[in-house]
Amino acid sequence: MSNEPKYLTGDKAAINDFIDRFDTFLFDCDGVLWSGHHVFHGVPMTLELLRSRGKRTIFVTNNSTKSRQEYVKKLASLNIPSTVEDVFGSAYSSAVYIARILNLPTGKNKVFVIGEAGVERELESEGVSYIGGTDPAFRRDITPADFEGIADGSLLDPQVGAVLCGLDFHINYLKLAHGLHYLRRGAVFLATNTDSTLPMHHDIFLGAGSTMIPLAHASDQKPLQLGKPSQAMMDAIEGKFQLNRSRTCMVGDRLNTDIKFGIDGRLGGTLHVQTGVDKKADWQRQDAIAVPMFYVDQLSDLNAA
Amino acid sequence: MSNEPKYLTGDKAAINDFIDRFDTFLFDCDGVLWSGHHVFHGVPMTLELLRSRGKRTIFVTNNSTKSRQEYVKKLASLNIPSTVEDVFGSAYSSAVYIARILNLPTGKNKVFVIGEAGVERELESEGVSYIGGTDPAFRRDITPADFEGIADGSLLDPQVGAVLCGLDFHINYLKLAHGLHYLRRGAVFLATNTDSTLPMHHDIFLGAGSTMIPLAHASDQKPLQLGKPSQAMMDAIEGKFQLNRSRTCMVGDRLNTDIKFGIDGRLGGTLHVQTGVDKKADWQRQDAIAVPMFYVDQLSDLNAA
Repeated sequence: MSNEPKYLTGDKAAINDFIDRFDTFLFDCDGVLWSGHHVFHGVPMTLELLRSRGKRTIFVTNNSTKSRQEYVKKLASLNIPSTVEDVFGSAYSSAVYIARILNLPTGKNKVFVIGEAGVERELESEGVSYIGGTDPAFRRDITPADFEGIADGSLLDPQVGAVLCGLDFHINYLKLAHGLHYLRRGAVFLATNTDSTLPMHHDIFLGAGSTMIPLAHASDQKPLQLGKPSQAMMDAIEGKFQLNRSRTCMVGDRLNTDIKFGIDGRLGGTLHVQTGVDKKADWQRQDAIAVPMFYVDQLSDLNAA
Repeated sequence: MSNEPKYLTGDKAAINDFIDRFDTFLFDCDGVLWSGHHVFHGVPMTLELLRSRGKRTIFVTNNSTKSRQEYVKKLASLNIPSTVEDVFGSAYSSAVYIARILNLPTGKNKVFVIGEAGVERELESEGVSYIGGTDPAFRRDITPADFEGIADGSLLDPQVGAVLCGLDFHINYLKLAHGLHYLRRGAVFLATNTDSTLPMHHDIFLGAGSTMIPLAHASDQKPLQLGKPSQAMMDAIEGKFQLNRSRTCMVGDRLNTDIKFGIDGRLGGTLHVQTGVDKKADWQRQDAIAVPMFYVDQLSDLNAA
């Protein structure tokens, strides 16, 4: 069947055909290049191989807690040299969306942030004003005076026009109460991504979707999410890198984010690796959310080219 | 139409008929007796009137942050004398359910609490062991060592057999991470109630449902909820007070908790007041979640009896 994903592992000719089809490779990171602090064997060589053949390699991640600069450091520590220009994260995607597409009106163009420093750095890089985030003033217990001042609006900043939620390891009731009341006053509801879980230490913890969901639940609103598989992120990547979509391949381990992201974006190809969350069996199911065009056991199987 | 709710305000004969139909009145508190710190005019007299006619008055609340003892204090401060025996809260309902119905096996009978002191006091009153809650050890930022110890289980208490979530004004990532990992190891998932919002200062804040939902979302499980309109709470009330359901009336302002609670419990009657969240227009809609049997503008309209 022509729609059957093509298995590349161990097939040198197929690997070379695969590589020749594309100019640009978009890589998910966790589960593809590394797991936690451990880089998968042979992966630095795969990146080197692709680059030596003139391919552009871009790292596309939904993790909003790190800025692009921090990602460059992490990649370097794992023997994958890169520059800020090679990295596209959901925090950066969100900042680009707010600065260049959302166009909040003057006097209503501040962002209330629920999230970590990665979100703040990227908003700064795009010149977007924000409050909240890692500000110690919001890292404390809520008081009776807070309840009153939030309800009557005296503690709210009238210039806030959007609430942006990323993964927040310092989530608390005070931040959520502020976020809820900005939403109730008409702020635009945005999320860097909505992954419900975060893989860590070979187990799962709460992801950005799970630290944001109290706001969605209490406000009865859903955020516009700007990470994979949102096509707002693909559009931002295309705008920045002048992609030829038909000559671009998305590489990832998750069907509902990575592979769906590539298919919805009508990229020339998608490559699924078996080293992360989803496995071959997941796209073999009748109700698979997305089916890749190519698959390998692990990314470094491409080194046989 | 015979199913049309009967309007009692200003109709002395109808009020007396109404009162005579019942031996016991279950009262929701917020929005019925008071709003925040403000008792509604005439309400203490209504309670007095009903008691003088030999009726039993029971206060049934989903607010789990206060213990029954604290409710008695609040009622007293609003000129409604009562005893602990008159109060039935969702924290107490949960404690009764855990102690008398859930029957956790020995060695697996501790409860991990996400919630405030009200939940802790009621678990103590029923002799249930717990950890978490207001313990300062859980009111702090999560550390890398926490992630590791939670994932490998070394920081988890092997005796925890249930996770109980109430409204928690001190919700944080550390507590949620513990809760998630107890659920992943098979703990029973319970909630005192699942109200998404909390009315306060004539506005809304996040309710117990919204501080619990990160766990539901990340674990992909739904808790058994033990507050209104759960019939586990009605069964517990019936068991404690030896209710004659057909001679009992539920009085409340919310259709989806109070009125539904009375109807699902096949009580003899339900009375809706217009001083809280839902109004007459809400049960007049085609898709109303519950329609009361009687209604008044405000509870003290019964004083015309």
